[in-house]
Amino acid sequence: MIETIEKNVQAVADEVEETFQKLAEKTRDSIGITRASYSRQETEAHLFLAQQAQASGLEVSTDYAVNTYMTLPGTDRSLPRVIMGSHLDSVQSGGNYDGAAGVVAGLYALKVLKNMGLKPAMDLCAMGIRGEESVWFQVSYLGSRAALGGLPADALDAVRIDTQCTLREHLIEAGGSPEAIENQTAILKPENVKAFLEVHIEQAPKLVEENLPLGICLAVPAMVMYPDVRITGAYGHVGTPMEYRRDAALAGAQIAYLMDRFWLTQHQSGSALAMTLGRFHTNTQAHGLTTIPGEFFFSIDMRGYDERLLEQFEQNFLDTVQQVEKEKGVQVDLGERRTAPLGVMDPKIIEALTTSAEELKIPFTQLYSPACHDAGAFSAAGIPTGMLFIRNEHGSHNPAESMEIEDFLQSLKVLILWLLKEVG
Amino acid sequence: MIETIEKNVQAVADEVEETFQKLAEKTRDSIGITRASYSRQETEAHLFLAQQAQASGLEVSTDYAVNTYMTLPGTDRSLPRVIMGSHLDSVQSGGNYDGAAGVVAGLYALKVLKNMGLKPAMDLCAMGIRGEESVWFQVSYLGSRAALGGLPADALDAVRIDTQCTLREHLIEAGGSPEAIENQTAILKPENVKAFLEVHIEQAPKLVEENLPLGICLAVPAMVMYPDVRITGAYGHVGTPMEYRRDAALAGAQIAYLMDRFWLTQHQSGSALAMTLGRFHTNTQAHGLTTIPGEFFFSIDMRGYDERLLEQFEQNFLDTVQQVEKEKGVQVDLGERRTAPLGVMDPKIIEALTTSAEELKIPFTQLYSPACHDAGAFSAAGIPTGMLFIRNEHGSHNPAESMEIEDFLQSLKVLILWLLKEVG
Repeated sequence: MIETIEKNVQAVADEVEETFQKLAEKTRDSIGITRASYSRQETEAHLFLAQQAQASGLEVSTDYAVNTYMTLPGTDRSLPRVIMGSHLDSVQSGGNYDGAAGVVAGLYALKVLKNMGLKPAMDLCAMGIRGEESVWFQVSYLGSRAALGGLPADALDAVRIDTQCTLREHLIEAGGSPEAIENQTAILKPENVKAFLEVHIEQAPKLVEENLPLGICLAVPAMVMYPDVRITGAYGHVGTPMEYRRDAALAGAQIAYLMDRFWLTQHQSGSALAMTLGRFHTNTQAHGLTTIPGEFFFSIDMRGYDERLLEQFEQNFLDTVQQVEKEKGVQVDLGERRTAPLGVMDPKIIEALTTSAEELKIPFTQLYSPACHDAGAFSAAGIPTGMLFIRNEHGSHNPAESMEIEDFLQSLKVLILWLLKEVG
Repeated sequence: MIETIEKNVQAVADEVEETFQKLAEKTRDSIGITRASYSRQETEAHLFLAQQAQASGLEVSTDYAVNTYMTLPGTDRSLPRVIMGSHLDSVQSGGNYDGAAGVVAGLYALKVLKNMGLKPAMDLCAMGIRGEESVWFQVSYLGSRAALGGLPADALDAVRIDTQCTLREHLIEAGGSPEAIENQTAILKPENVKAFLEVHIEQAPKLVEENLPLGICLAVPAMVMYPDVRITGAYGHVGTPMEYRRDAALAGAQIAYLMDRFWLTQHQSGSALAMTLGRFHTNTQAHGLTTIPGEFFFSIDMRGYDERLLEQFEQNFLDTVQQVEKEKGVQVDLGERRTAPLGVMDPKIIEALTTSAEELKIPFTQLYSPACHDAGAFSAAGIPTGMLFIRNEHGSHNPAESMEIEDFLQSLKVLILWLLKEVG
């Protein structure tokens, strides 16, 4: 069996490489790859892979969120299916592999199984997911949450940052149905999906540093985010002595620094947490060289794999805010609070991926995903979920992301052996 | 003598109040007072006070930087003169007293002395100074440094932030001579100015808190400023573990926090220092909720009354920058460095102001000026200099600044008694 898989995967190597190249050509901009959520370019990527699937004799369909399903039909179509999928959109001027690698992996796993003559009991399905990159509509997991029935209806009013048109408008343009999303109709649910597996390039440099082609995901992090924190102090003349000031920028710096130190102590005691203050700024309309900043604005994104530890991290943030409010005489308005639940990976899937990699003698490690993924939405919906990471240099969300086709083929072998175990 | 001064000052009280009201009316905008450096409004303020001076029989002249001189001529005009002055410009939507109070004080001191029948030996002069508020051209002390021969020629190319026209253009429009500034011709120098005294509203709340109408200045701070510091880290995906990041915003926060703590230890040991990070921000064109900030920008203004302590403060800043560069894996480009020398107040003037206030039984304190003033430029030019602060609520650089006319009249009494001592 191992040899058959290796031989059949090696046989599609050139075709895989060509597929990635053509996908890049279709969606290249002057700097990198741009496939905005629900854009013409994202749709083109979906159609391109769907054509390949049809040419290989797979069934192709879409749902009301215009996700693409490429299916190797089972002998008993009433059985819960197995889905392999990821997203086909990208950030502005990003890379070709973030998202797309997982859809291509699913497609080629089915092609290879078909070539091997497998007739599975249940449907096996490669899924191209819409709208994962939250940068476009400032809402995460559009396609997967829509299919899972978990996308809030007000997401339809979210506006895409480049076009200023709503998700509703873009969805209709792409051929989808806003009504079904408003009704929160779940197409994918634990009763009809046996397992969901997402292959994705790694975004941290861990696999590169450890010189390993693959990583098996232990969990997708839970997230708490305050996107619009605002500190109000008092604008003042540079000549005001420090002890009389209510400096909003120094208050912001203190919150950030104390959180950074708290993170460090947690990190040193082995807790996996992360925080990002992506926006962190004085009011660029009002600030000046000789003006004490009276306003300060920031966003904070906190992530962790242990919900109790993440709760502590958030509590420390709230305590720090209170401390700094008192110490600096400022007022902190936390604004909106957003969360994403922990993406628990199914122990049986972790186990099956692990033994598959071992049997194939492919070096790997088990690791936590620092980033959020569609897999998190499937896990939160109660569907047994797994993730497989492919080594990738230079991080993602930039044109320099670089995955070796050889590493991709290793992930394909593991995926196929795992599928055979699931089917079996 | 004390009684004569008190009586004659009380006699002009209503006239003083009216002068401030008319000045405000002429230069009011929808929010506060705006008299931009070398603007029509600033010129109007100069002309208005010059008319008052002429009506009172004082001599009026201007110099090539269009500063206004209102003079009570001395019996021996070859003797070094005594100048009382401050600036007539304001920040955008500022208050009516920051600067103007000092010019009105000089003018009314001369009026009262004239009313009292004084014929001084040397010229006594009230000076309306141009362009003190550095916010307009991003260059400080335009009028005073030009008259003192110390304004660098390239200041003529500085651009006013609202009009985008150069100082050269605005100067010509106001009737000045760019050539004389290019030649750095000094009109005012130690040989022909016996003393310079600036009355100014206090910008810190110290006099309000201590319930004292007047303060006698011990020194104007020395200043070191880095207006355009830039931190370069690496933009990255929110999924990058913290230990692999090069977060420019957290680096900025750490520098600010560590400087703030250093300031606190210095403050607790009695050292008078201040720092202002007026601009403190991520790149608002590139930042985002889920992007690790790869750039950070800030300005830092450090002030102190002891040049050795200020040097230590700056050294601590430079050391902190180096430490944070290493710790956070970022690169800090300090950019331009600007300085202003310590404004030493003349001990004899401090002494004379002190005894004058005591003789008049006006409560006062001696204090350091936290802000920079034209007086600093006169002191740096080697002219014996003093400053007198008037109690003022709500700080300055805002429409809410509020000086009581009663407190202003107290300063006028001290000014007149001091002038009599200088003349004597």
